[in-house]
Amino acid sequence: MHIDILTLFPDMFDGVLNTSIMKRAQERDAFSYQYVNFRDYTTSKHNKVDDYPYGGGAGLVLTPQPIFDAIDELKQKSEKPPRVVLMCPQGEPHSQQKAEELAQEDHLIFICGHYEGYDERIRQELVTDEISLGDYVLTGGELGAMVVMDSVIRLIPGVLGNKESAPQDSFSNGLLEHPHYTRPAEFRGHKVPDVLLSGNHAKIDEWRHYQSLKRTFERRPDLLEDRELTPQEKAWIEEWKNS
Amino acid sequence: MHIDILTLFPDMFDGVLNTSIMKRAQERDAFSYQYVNFRDYTTSKHNKVDDYPYGGGAGLVLTPQPIFDAIDELKQKSEKPPRVVLMCPQGEPHSQQKAEELAQEDHLIFICGHYEGYDERIRQELVTDEISLGDYVLTGGELGAMVVMDSVIRLIPGVLGNKESAPQDSFSNGLLEHPHYTRPAEFRGHKVPDVLLSGNHAKIDEWRHYQSLKRTFERRPDLLEDRELTPQEKAWIEEWKNS
Repeated sequence: MHIDILTLFPDMFDGVLNTSIMKRAQERDAFSYQYVNFRDYTTSKHNKVDDYPYGGGAGLVLTPQPIFDAIDELKQKSEKPPRVVLMCPQGEPHSQQKAEELAQEDHLIFICGHYEGYDERIRQELVTDEISLGDYVLTGGELGAMVVMDSVIRLIPGVLGNKESAPQDSFSNGLLEHPHYTRPAEFRGHKVPDVLLSGNHAKIDEWRHYQSLKRTFERRPDLLEDRELTPQEKAWIEEWKNS
Repeated sequence: MHIDILTLFPDMFDGVLNTSIMKRAQERDAFSYQYVNFRDYTTSKHNKVDDYPYGGGAGLVLTPQPIFDAIDELKQKSEKPPRVVLMCPQGEPHSQQKAEELAQEDHLIFICGHYEGYDERIRQELVTDEISLGDYVLTGGELGAMVVMDSVIRLIPGVLGNKESAPQDSFSNGLLEHPHYTRPAEFRGHKVPDVLLSGNHAKIDEWRHYQSLKRTFERRPDLLEDRELTPQEKAWIEEWKNS
């Protein structure tokens, strides 16, 4: 996979893209990236990339020309049309399903604004996917692009080892993860639950399933709305509702 | 505000914390940070910070000792107890409201795991806030901490100028933002809507309100569930439902 990142702040990305899994993914040729400072494409006299909004109002809006020209050039390198992702609060909330979908692509382009709004014509004519991290305001699209990239690149086959993939299966079975415990068995007076030390794997599996469902019930009941509950799960939920 | 960041990968943060608003916030003494590599606190012979999970299963779990000892030391520097934020998929989904709440604090501590799960005793005894960015899996808590920090630090008084704050008021009025347009009035055959060039501010405000509500209705109807609609808004929504 190749990713082009349109940004005015390429330095923000270095630490994240050259550490841990993202670094390894590059070493394994699973992923490459290029920064595209779209200021380099402006035809404005003063190297401007933004301007005042039509209709008035505070703030600045990214002009279409530099971003259209940059993406025209990048598209010429691709055999099939790349996905063009705009990070913005108006986008679809990011999800594991979206990450899995993007992980199938060969070429992604991220457009990261900073402070500014985007001229609507960028959205309408260039962008294939508008993504929001969640319902909170960030200074720019750069962190969002890094988050989406991390969620996507770790799904490319061969990038993760067993060590990293196993503990992160939250959302893959639709429930929040059960609690984890490791050594020591007692720490500052707080003990590991006996069942985990019992060696009885059927009991351990049941305990984990119970805890996982309970945590989801307490914290994120919305995740249970579309779930087909087993008779055992229904019984547990009845019990919690009554207590 | 001071933020301590417990992480095994401090290099990931540099580009983000030393650019743009986060950099300026430090220059204006609104915010300072320190990396705490909790591996420095381990009493294990081989500098280990994680171990196998009790009860079996793949993956590793962060042990309580290094993180408890690191936070004990950090708490001594604070007059009042700091908020201790754990980034994890089981946490409360991050929100603008949470960012506003954390922006009131003097001292935050972020705990960032990487690959591993957390021993449950860390969660139960140390952590005041568990936060998730959204329902997708990331390699570690570092990017999540950066995102939460960005959303919080930009709210500290004096950090943002007018230029940056104005266009990012998504979520503050409960609706997605209306489209923005800037020069040129026509670009590659795509024109700016006439109303924005009309100079009629009442009409412009109405158009923006209409577009903002329409975009929310189409993309994020969940945001309208708790909204008290005006008669005009009700009429518009009826119209869209019927078309």
